[in-house]
Amino acid sequence: MTANQSRQELQAREMDADIVIEGGTAITMVDGQEPLPDTSIFITDGKITDIRKTDYQGNQVLDSRVEIIDAKEAIIMPGLINAHTHGAMTLFRGFADDLPLKQWLFDKIFPAEARFLNPDTVYWGSLLGCLEMIASGTTCCVDGYFFQGDTVRAVHESGLRGLIAQGVIDFPAPGITDPKENIRVAREFIERWLGYSDLITPGIFCHSPLTCSDRTLKAAKKISQSFDLPLQIHLSETREEVDEVMNKTGKRPVHYLDELGLVDETLIASHAVYLDDNEMECLRKNSVKVVHVPESNMKLCSGAGRISDMVKMGLTVGLGTDGCSSNNNMDLFCEMDTAAKLSKVFDNDPTSLDARTVLKMATIWGAAVLGLENEIGTLEKGKKADIIVLDLHNPHLCPVYDPVSVIVYSANGSDVKDVVVNGKVLMKNRKFTTLNSNEIMEKVNNISKNIKL
Amino acid sequence: MTANQSRQELQAREMDADIVIEGGTAITMVDGQEPLPDTSIFITDGKITDIRKTDYQGNQVLDSRVEIIDAKEAIIMPGLINAHTHGAMTLFRGFADDLPLKQWLFDKIFPAEARFLNPDTVYWGSLLGCLEMIASGTTCCVDGYFFQGDTVRAVHESGLRGLIAQGVIDFPAPGITDPKENIRVAREFIERWLGYSDLITPGIFCHSPLTCSDRTLKAAKKISQSFDLPLQIHLSETREEVDEVMNKTGKRPVHYLDELGLVDETLIASHAVYLDDNEMECLRKNSVKVVHVPESNMKLCSGAGRISDMVKMGLTVGLGTDGCSSNNNMDLFCEMDTAAKLSKVFDNDPTSLDARTVLKMATIWGAAVLGLENEIGTLEKGKKADIIVLDLHNPHLCPVYDPVSVIVYSANGSDVKDVVVNGKVLMKNRKFTTLNSNEIMEKVNNISKNIKL
Repeated sequence: MTANQSRQELQAREMDADIVIEGGTAITMVDGQEPLPDTSIFITDGKITDIRKTDYQGNQVLDSRVEIIDAKEAIIMPGLINAHTHGAMTLFRGFADDLPLKQWLFDKIFPAEARFLNPDTVYWGSLLGCLEMIASGTTCCVDGYFFQGDTVRAVHESGLRGLIAQGVIDFPAPGITDPKENIRVAREFIERWLGYSDLITPGIFCHSPLTCSDRTLKAAKKISQSFDLPLQIHLSETREEVDEVMNKTGKRPVHYLDELGLVDETLIASHAVYLDDNEMECLRKNSVKVVHVPESNMKLCSGAGRISDMVKMGLTVGLGTDGCSSNNNMDLFCEMDTAAKLSKVFDNDPTSLDARTVLKMATIWGAAVLGLENEIGTLEKGKKADIIVLDLHNPHLCPVYDPVSVIVYSANGSDVKDVVVNGKVLMKNRKFTTLNSNEIMEKVNNISKNIKL
Repeated sequence: MTANQSRQELQAREMDADIVIEGGTAITMVDGQEPLPDTSIFITDGKITDIRKTDYQGNQVLDSRVEIIDAKEAIIMPGLINAHTHGAMTLFRGFADDLPLKQWLFDKIFPAEARFLNPDTVYWGSLLGCLEMIASGTTCCVDGYFFQGDTVRAVHESGLRGLIAQGVIDFPAPGITDPKENIRVAREFIERWLGYSDLITPGIFCHSPLTCSDRTLKAAKKISQSFDLPLQIHLSETREEVDEVMNKTGKRPVHYLDELGLVDETLIASHAVYLDDNEMECLRKNSVKVVHVPESNMKLCSGAGRISDMVKMGLTVGLGTDGCSSNNNMDLFCEMDTAAKLSKVFDNDPTSLDARTVLKMATIWGAAVLGLENEIGTLEKGKKADIIVLDLHNPHLCPVYDPVSVIVYSANGSDVKDVVVNGKVLMKNRKFTTLNSNEIMEKVNNISKNIKL
């Protein structure tokens, strides 16, 4: 083939593409695949159609209908997946820090939620969360909260992918004055939003085995099962909570949930700090998905969790930021760094949770938490184009011996230059394309001025 | 006074100023002082000459000789102080991660240092370190390494402030083939660079009580004493090291150093992970300065340290990033966040090391580590103008209930917009003014291509 033929072939290929991400080092996260230098990714109809060596001098695409994302001096990688968050809690970022846990929850967060959450504030708080996720390279989230129809609206506008679940708790909750209504509200939420968007799956989020009765837990399971949806829950976040569940039920939390029929491959168990060997084996055997939330677990002094043990056992472990009231940001790059370092110092083993493992947690394993491991989480032909570009032209990312080390140990979310979800550009050269950042920040700033207890 | 008179007075004041930082929320770090909204800082001849409410509509300074830094929607705060680092180790950022400690040190870092450090590589590595510190809001550093004359050159060019200390170790070291020469090299380093720059203090850095003999430690102390300079040392970083010192000397490391005469107010003890109560009391009584290095301690699984206990005892504790081979960046914003969270989860106390405390560690207490607490570390009239401006117009920094929480728990170094050291602007709107970032990154990238073992 002559150079000319090769060029013609390339142009033909490009003309089929909607977007070409051009010239970066691709970290595909496909098992065993090394970094691919000088690589271009072709995207058509929302999917990755080709991944190939950039064999021409950049920016030669002639067809002006093709959108070019310049990735020279950059890393191209799967978008990050935030497998446990409460996006609208951006509203309470920095509202209450450094307090004893019960004071934080009962004197600050619960009263603030009760007084200040409504469809409007949840909508704007969720939009701010989406803005922050896009700005820091997250392309998909698992969100559990209240007024979740308004979260769906926000996530849909942002163009992000997500599993958005309505909270269920046997106490009066935002939007659900009578706890008896919680299951009905959740069912109606799912019925309303199922099929609304290709990118958004509605779901149910049981607050915890302690704050939901056995009846509520079983009813939630029944609904999620009938719609074939995942079921989220906070599991064994604190030692006190485990003790209280044991006092109440005579069983450790995992066994209690197992008895109720909740422990199966659709269960997403977040935190999972205090588990004994038998509980971990029960989760593994039943293919339960675990989500590690290290920064929140540290800030609220919940504990470190036996994450490296779970990974070694073969459990699927994703990574989440939790809500901004206990973190206080949604930066999964920092979360990966913290996950690796926390594991090392708690395990007394510097090899514990290496860089590649935590990057898996934030990408392909996160995808598996949602049951989307065949759709997203790696860069592969045929997969959905959920892709981010990380700008290496920054002092703190230089030099590059190993791009995976750069991603996990050196970068932060502000190094993300471009974000594509489902083949749509959500941020380009750090400019948002779907959301009006000034309007959102101004709105949330105004809302926050009234949030006082 | 009429509005016109007021305006004339302001203009007169401004005409005396070299720089006005205009219109931000000032976090002065003066004890007991609340955040000052809508504040302007006037800088003349390298010093802060006024801190006052911005009582006019911004950008009205008419004298074009006055440089205006716009701090609307921003936080104005003291520059951060990195109290323990090895700047040139940016050369080895990501060169060796996730390895057992001894393999990391003896198979990777020491051999790489021996083969690839020379005056040229240390100079460029240090320049990259300076670039990264400026980019992330650090205005002063305590650096200990080898070929430190070349580090002084780099720091001087960058405009940063620093205590730059020549490493002393009783093994062959970069630039010091015969360990018997180590003290002579350090003395000559001090004599050469003392008084070279108002911003740079040369010093001695003893590698550790284990890797330096008693004779070397005493000789180093004698020199630092004769020049009235601080003495740096790595202290009790790992449990093994403490055991080995006890085997060798029959004493715990602090008591061993005390016996040699090193324990006084000029000693800067970094890491300080494994100390017993008696050692901590000995450090306190003698006004020793401790530097906490949480991310490096986590990554190398050294331990967490009893930092909150030391703070409660009244010890002066600064904050450092360590070198980029064990962190892998120099971002003190992330380091503050990690310090607070690590302390909470290890102490099992969510109130441990609150946001204000870790911000003190990175500012005024860091200044005290260098003995510069009357010169820098707070925003006060008469102090040196080492000031940074943090851009709040970012999704992850919105809303603002408490600016100190934003700084510690939400921000990262990339949010820093402007950096002033000693009244000189080193970064404005994220553009470097003293260093050529493209040249430095290209140079270090080229150096790194040859760094292979």
